[in-house]
Amino acid sequence: MAGEMKTTLNGLDVMAATQTIEAIKADKSLARFQFRAKNTWVGGGENRSTIRDFYGAGLEDDSRKVAFEFTNGEPPVLLGNNEGGNPVEYLLHALAGCVTTTFVLHAMARGIEIRSLSTELEGDMDLRGLLGLDDSVSPGYEEIRIRMHVDAACSDEELEDLMRYAEAHSPVCNTVCRPVPVKLSRA
Amino acid sequence: MAGEMKTTLNGLDVMAATQTIEAIKADKSLARFQFRAKNTWVGGGENRSTIRDFYGAGLEDDSRKVAFEFTNGEPPVLLGNNEGGNPVEYLLHALAGCVTTTFVLHAMARGIEIRSLSTELEGDMDLRGLLGLDDSVSPGYEEIRIRMHVDAACSDEELEDLMRYAEAHSPVCNTVCRPVPVKLSRA
Repeated sequence: MAGEMKTTLNGLDVMAATQTIEAIKADKSLARFQFRAKNTWVGGGENRSTIRDFYGAGLEDDSRKVAFEFTNGEPPVLLGNNEGGNPVEYLLHALAGCVTTTFVLHAMARGIEIRSLSTELEGDMDLRGLLGLDDSVSPGYEEIRIRMHVDAACSDEELEDLMRYAEAHSPVCNTVCRPVPVKLSRA
Repeated sequence: MAGEMKTTLNGLDVMAATQTIEAIKADKSLARFQFRAKNTWVGGGENRSTIRDFYGAGLEDDSRKVAFEFTNGEPPVLLGNNEGGNPVEYLLHALAGCVTTTFVLHAMARGIEIRSLSTELEGDMDLRGLLGLDDSVSPGYEEIRIRMHVDAACSDEELEDLMRYAEAHSPVCNTVCRPVPVKLSRA
């Protein structure tokens, strides 16, 4: 009976999380991950990624029987036909998801139950950067704001501390906040 | 007859692109864009974004009749059930798409026909950062590599120059390469 018990908090398997953390503490090479994507241009502002395999926890993952497929597109004002979300919108989706998962994971580690959580994101950009019309204008987001609605079984101070912790430890948030080298080369 | 002609290069409407650029040159406020996402936590490492409206070219866009919906998930080794790509994978998709679209756009501006284009991306990360096991380990990507396969009607030197230009002017690439402030607050 005990062997079948599974304790979850915030939808995460507490025992599995603890085992993962202990395994990484014992062998830090298990913490090395490599994520991958393949993308093919369709035409104009439309292109498609397939994502399936990755390396992590010491081996090549084979848990996905079918690849995920995501389509980038552009709205008419950006010369497309809304074939999909556009790349800077997918970045917001990635950021929202990563801050959320990091928040929920560390809430679990602290024994805090999250009842509900949602976020709203806004990012500002000046298209003159992308178009190369003004070298003093950066092509990327100038700033991204995330407003979090959260209901949890803890004090406001604990929530605030969790938010600061998630902000500092989210891989996507960190990739955006810090300068991360991107190396583009011809195959 | 002439009024119905539409010249496209690389799947992009050349006249529309020129008009957009001229309009922005005449009124730089038209270059201001704000992109948005709303995300709701489902449970564990699963959460879902809806993306629809944005502000740009001086007005609120209403071209999308239905919102795009994207699901973040995690693989079993990261305590999930592959409910969707994970956030750091979506980031690679965003980056691939943005570099591709920027490349294709500026190829058009230079009159260069792109016949085919695909990319392969890899990003390395050490999970001890996310888990908070070692403060000296950054939670984000350490480096992201993009290998581009491209067939175009131009010289290798022109291709190399286009690659460097796309790298420098892609909004997502720029958001990753530079430090961009992310402000997380409670709603």
